[in-house]
Amino acid sequence: MNSNHPPALVIIDVQQGFEDDVWGKRNNPNAEERIRHLLQLWRTLQWPVIHIQHVSTNPYSPLSPNGRGVLFKEIVKPLDGEKVIQKNVNSAFIGTDLESYLKQHNIADVVIVGLTTPHCVSTTVRMSGNLGFNTYVISDATAAFGLRGPDGIYYDADQIHNISLATLHGEFATVLTAEELIKQFIGQ
Amino acid sequence: MNSNHPPALVIIDVQQGFEDDVWGKRNNPNAEERIRHLLQLWRTLQWPVIHIQHVSTNPYSPLSPNGRGVLFKEIVKPLDGEKVIQKNVNSAFIGTDLESYLKQHNIADVVIVGLTTPHCVSTTVRMSGNLGFNTYVISDATAAFGLRGPDGIYYDADQIHNISLATLHGEFATVLTAEELIKQFIGQ
Repeated sequence: MNSNHPPALVIIDVQQGFEDDVWGKRNNPNAEERIRHLLQLWRTLQWPVIHIQHVSTNPYSPLSPNGRGVLFKEIVKPLDGEKVIQKNVNSAFIGTDLESYLKQHNIADVVIVGLTTPHCVSTTVRMSGNLGFNTYVISDATAAFGLRGPDGIYYDADQIHNISLATLHGEFATVLTAEELIKQFIGQ
Repeated sequence: MNSNHPPALVIIDVQQGFEDDVWGKRNNPNAEERIRHLLQLWRTLQWPVIHIQHVSTNPYSPLSPNGRGVLFKEIVKPLDGEKVIQKNVNSAFIGTDLESYLKQHNIADVVIVGLTTPHCVSTTVRMSGNLGFNTYVISDATAAFGLRGPDGIYYDADQIHNISLATLHGEFATVLTAEELIKQFIGQ
């Protein structure tokens, strides 16, 4: 940690709509369980938790507020009083009060987990680092879906996930596993 | 194009410091030549051109203003009167007037080229799309260096480049080749 203030756990888009088949094949099926574990630790320590919820402006998206997909997954559902920020683009810093909230609370260290590695997680991590927050991404508490490139080639979820993390590590953030994070921050 | 205003060509960080050996092995050696060709077209059509220059705050970076590395490569050097925006993080939208400049000039369409695909190009493209600009990335007018992931695995420049583009395409931007761009925008 770079400061005397505890790090914020920022949980991106862990919503029921990501169970929809439209997204294709996913990796890291245990990501939600690791996020639940980190969330429980953060709550025990009374460290700041921020839940990010994607509210799509596309009525056909599985994350549209017209359906149940917009709801948080039960496993990481916010408690009353925990900060929830809604967004409608990939970055949790665009069109939201995330940056001002972190600054007002003197939070310098940001731990980012959630869905999905190449899109909302990567974009939020990039902005977090560029805005000056000391940023961590937890490799096994994030997950990706396979994607087809503009070249028509299909890249599977692990390739997308691993290379997305490689493009973040050391440039925008430090990539750690949940176990490494806990050792480094909590010493358990 | 989505508007009657011509698209802006945004050229990211095509600077002499990227010739330094520290970056490792690169792909797309002809990217600069393609950027030169697009820049020439944009100048002929009198369409808006924006040059982005990375001015590193790290005195040991090849892009530090202490050395010649911060200078633009001769092949795409700005002309007098062309807009130049300096930045010191990856995103050309953070700490700069890029967003307000585009809006003031009623520019809705943004064509992004330059260096490097996974870092400054990807971050600027993500923010451009999320801020509402209709964004294009030109696959053969960008280039990447190989990177080592947090897992210790080395990913070569083509892998980094292709998967970076796959994570942008259809989500933040449309990825085109220079030839496809010219056909679509200019019809030549």
